[in-house]
Amino acid sequence: MSENQQIVLKSRPAGAATLENFELRSEPLPALLEGQVRVRHQFLSLDPYMRGRMNEGKSYAAAQALGEVMIGGTVGEVVESRHASFSVGDAVAGMGGWQLYSVVNADQPGVLRKLDTRQIPISAYLGAVGMPGVTAWWGLVRIIEPRKGETVVVSAASGAVGSAVGALAQARGCRVVGIAGGAEKCAYVKNELGFDDCVDYKAHRDLADLSKALKAACPHGIDGYFENVGGVVTDAVMRRMNAFGRMAVCGMISRYDGAAPSMADPSLILISRLKLQGFIVSEHMQDWPEALRELAGLYIGGKLRPRETVAQGLAAAPQAFLGLLKGHNFGKQLVRL
Amino acid sequence: MSENQQIVLKSRPAGAATLENFELRSEPLPALLEGQVRVRHQFLSLDPYMRGRMNEGKSYAAAQALGEVMIGGTVGEVVESRHASFSVGDAVAGMGGWQLYSVVNADQPGVLRKLDTRQIPISAYLGAVGMPGVTAWWGLVRIIEPRKGETVVVSAASGAVGSAVGALAQARGCRVVGIAGGAEKCAYVKNELGFDDCVDYKAHRDLADLSKALKAACPHGIDGYFENVGGVVTDAVMRRMNAFGRMAVCGMISRYDGAAPSMADPSLILISRLKLQGFIVSEHMQDWPEALRELAGLYIGGKLRPRETVAQGLAAAPQAFLGLLKGHNFGKQLVRL
Repeated sequence: MSENQQIVLKSRPAGAATLENFELRSEPLPALLEGQVRVRHQFLSLDPYMRGRMNEGKSYAAAQALGEVMIGGTVGEVVESRHASFSVGDAVAGMGGWQLYSVVNADQPGVLRKLDTRQIPISAYLGAVGMPGVTAWWGLVRIIEPRKGETVVVSAASGAVGSAVGALAQARGCRVVGIAGGAEKCAYVKNELGFDDCVDYKAHRDLADLSKALKAACPHGIDGYFENVGGVVTDAVMRRMNAFGRMAVCGMISRYDGAAPSMADPSLILISRLKLQGFIVSEHMQDWPEALRELAGLYIGGKLRPRETVAQGLAAAPQAFLGLLKGHNFGKQLVRL
Repeated sequence: MSENQQIVLKSRPAGAATLENFELRSEPLPALLEGQVRVRHQFLSLDPYMRGRMNEGKSYAAAQALGEVMIGGTVGEVVESRHASFSVGDAVAGMGGWQLYSVVNADQPGVLRKLDTRQIPISAYLGAVGMPGVTAWWGLVRIIEPRKGETVVVSAASGAVGSAVGALAQARGCRVVGIAGGAEKCAYVKNELGFDDCVDYKAHRDLADLSKALKAACPHGIDGYFENVGGVVTDAVMRRMNAFGRMAVCGMISRYDGAAPSMADPSLILISRLKLQGFIVSEHMQDWPEALRELAGLYIGGKLRPRETVAQGLAAAPQAFLGLLKGHNFGKQLVRL
């Protein structure tokens, strides 16, 4: 435990992100100051929002500086503590970044959260019972506000957020339909996650075709849509939205690499009296405890146990991240450190 | 008073609406049944939503049948009554349509509203203190929810809805900026309606140019946008929206003639955590009394006295309506019958 390994942002992507944008480096572990805690990370979470941070300019979060450690959620174990509330051996979650160790000023509220790993494995706190789960909860509960019997559709359904949207909506008595890429993911969404149906967007490439497939999967139209992708998928969903439908805009992954797909027919917002709302879950910390309680309950009850895809070792993180952006991962993408 | 004159929908527009889509006809006045009231209309309101009704297919309201009298709001005087609540001479507002007389089954709640014309002229009940005013109120108060000091932008600012949005937002302590077409309308919006500023979209044709003009008029960004037009104006406004901005989608006039402009960058919904919501004021009747009270107060207090453009005679209605769709009117478009 004398050296830390880190991955930093070496250059900004011109178009699609590449391995060359990242750099692995080592540095000695600094001594702890009073009030600080050292965490050895066990898992790093990889998430689409990180792509936005790699760009310069206006995004929904500040750009990451060049040469800085890539931002990211982590879970791990306290290995050294100069703070009264944390002891060596505590399991904790935080935003430790793409590195083996982090030093946390533990006095700041919320930067380090103790985890109960008796019934829930520590990696789940980066997925179903972590930020992706709370993201699903916030968009569904606070924006879509689903009522029993309504139809809720979620794109990127096989992912960490999508699977949680499905479980939370089913717990509210909704018909839940996923959108995912490829027969294998769709089979997983239906058979393992238990969605009522799943539309394979790769098998329905254009707007008319996708719209038809959605009509078949949603015979009573769509009341709530949890948006993770953007582009033609969104256009097709909008055509099928019922009057007074709600769309929670959580991610538009097709945008992260610089292309900006337009919305084909925004007049549907008026025609169908839709509500669309964008959100970032970290701006709603007051709701995290309530959301995490429900998510933990679903996990323990076996209703929310999505797959994880685990890359091995910090050096594997950039490749795993690029794969995530292209939809290569299956379920929650983690890196074991 | 032996004959009614009416304008009916003769054919559906193929692209832009034309005079040939309308037909003027006469028919004898039917005898009244028990519970019915006959109204002689004094003014007919012309509004963009009527264009949507002329099309077949899914719009935000049922299509108007061919051969039927064009729908429309009217104010007038009771000339014959077989209902205990209405007397000859009462001033009333209703949805009488494009005709001189209408017969109303006055038992249906809300179909006929008595008007107090002592301090407010009857024509104002079709504009500032009528449906356009309530439309402004609902979008502003229920969707935009403006706070003191925020910047509110409204397109089609010189129109009946736009002028009311401005007065209502100023009453709430907001900076109010209009968007209108042409120097004359912009001067009216600033000098007569008292907006803080007005952007002439005809002088700033492309997205970058319009966006720049909006930046100059809204140095602190835009918190609320009342959408009446769609297209490039919307795209430019979205670029200037502040985080957590709200957009009330009331009309997309550029859409009514069949073209469907896309939204250039919907990812701004996420980036700026925007809320967009479409609405139709007739679906929120429970809020009309509160809205009308405030609007009447603003009218009587001299804070909301927009111009009217009055076409003379029923036969002039189609031409006036086509002009309205092209933005030729100045303020609320009425027809004196």
